[in-house]
Amino acid sequence: MSDTNNKPVLYTSLSPALLHLYDISSSIVVIIDVLRATSTIAAALHNGAKEIIPVDSVPECIRIGKQLDAITAGERDGKVAEGLQYGNSPFEYPASFIGGKTLVLTTTNGTKLLHMALEKGAEQIITGAFSNLDAVCNYLLQQKKNVLLACSAWKDRVNIEDTLFAGAVINQIGSHFSVNCDASRMALSLYKEAGNDLFEFMKQREASHYVRLSLFGLEKDIRHCLLSNTAPVLPIYQSGKLVKY
Amino acid sequence: MSDTNNKPVLYTSLSPALLHLYDISSSIVVIIDVLRATSTIAAALHNGAKEIIPVDSVPECIRIGKQLDAITAGERDGKVAEGLQYGNSPFEYPASFIGGKTLVLTTTNGTKLLHMALEKGAEQIITGAFSNLDAVCNYLLQQKKNVLLACSAWKDRVNIEDTLFAGAVINQIGSHFSVNCDASRMALSLYKEAGNDLFEFMKQREASHYVRLSLFGLEKDIRHCLLSNTAPVLPIYQSGKLVKY
Repeated sequence: MSDTNNKPVLYTSLSPALLHLYDISSSIVVIIDVLRATSTIAAALHNGAKEIIPVDSVPECIRIGKQLDAITAGERDGKVAEGLQYGNSPFEYPASFIGGKTLVLTTTNGTKLLHMALEKGAEQIITGAFSNLDAVCNYLLQQKKNVLLACSAWKDRVNIEDTLFAGAVINQIGSHFSVNCDASRMALSLYKEAGNDLFEFMKQREASHYVRLSLFGLEKDIRHCLLSNTAPVLPIYQSGKLVKY
Repeated sequence: MSDTNNKPVLYTSLSPALLHLYDISSSIVVIIDVLRATSTIAAALHNGAKEIIPVDSVPECIRIGKQLDAITAGERDGKVAEGLQYGNSPFEYPASFIGGKTLVLTTTNGTKLLHMALEKGAEQIITGAFSNLDAVCNYLLQQKKNVLLACSAWKDRVNIEDTLFAGAVINQIGSHFSVNCDASRMALSLYKEAGNDLFEFMKQREASHYVRLSLFGLEKDIRHCLLSNTAPVLPIYQSGKLVKY
């Protein structure tokens, strides 16, 4: 699928509802859910979690959690889901708590998209957020394979923060890929416009997820999730689990 | 569906594959297909066409054309579709040719989306392009109803030019609506970044549709379709036909 100039191709899918448009059978799919699933995944693995099992429903999360005697965590609509022990904030998983443990995680958008990519036959699945931006970029450069930057969005509606992260990746490594994709160009534009202070940009634009999480008092989470390279690990999906590469 | 501040709401759908996310039963849906269906629709009506019948397949276009002894036109993949008489360029419909006539039109993206909006129960359907930007904005201001700016995209993939038009509308009249929609914010950002010379912006960014149509020698069409208010009419869908409001 690489084009005539022999560079691998890179596309951006702005919503899970657009994933079907892309052939991912020979691509690395980067699952992006900046607020907050993929930020939390990077934080937990960086802080020593043994593995993270992403599941797509709360009952499944509870069932596997019991079976493995693992920590169950997740959110629905931005709040800790009923029946689960922990939420979807990177601050909930310091090394003192998560070190050596298994986390079973389900979220509104991110883990759902991961399972969609799996069912669609992605060659590889990794997760990306600002907290592990450089790790993602370095891995993609090293692999030299086709890439789909897959934004988790919010209930299929395009969102600013996941698009910004796609733009950040393209800004850093886009020249190593053949990018014939307007969504990627739009993501790059948005990222360049946002400048250095992503939190301020999200706030000024009244990004829908900024508004939603602020109402729950989660400004601290938003601010943290927009910082780069605070959890420099590469989560990769292998045999049903996200582990540190 | 209008929110607490009593302004009507405005959303942007960046692709037909996202249309299902929006309740349009009490909304005016603006079908946007800048390159080139909605530019051609505005041009033909401005130049005196009696009416335009948008249909979603080539056989249907031929059948209705024969039945009404009307002009059949349309494209598939950017070229005149086999079996039809005319294409999808605004330059094909000068007043000397189209005055008083009925045009039956089918296109890859725009007329398809119009039928989707119809099936989904849109309260009203109008069409928008840069060529009738002010007419669209004035109508929406006057109606004071909820609005969905619906981009036709390219085979469901988000495109720059339709997003730019959504941004242009929001730039002009967004303050009269309640806009809680990241896609709208992204469209506005892109439009503001593009500045005055949209053609140059599309060219510089190598927008996918710019590249596609340029290969067919259609730079002149692209340039024309990005100019504002060259065909100041409002096409509105009534009883199966697009007519001048």
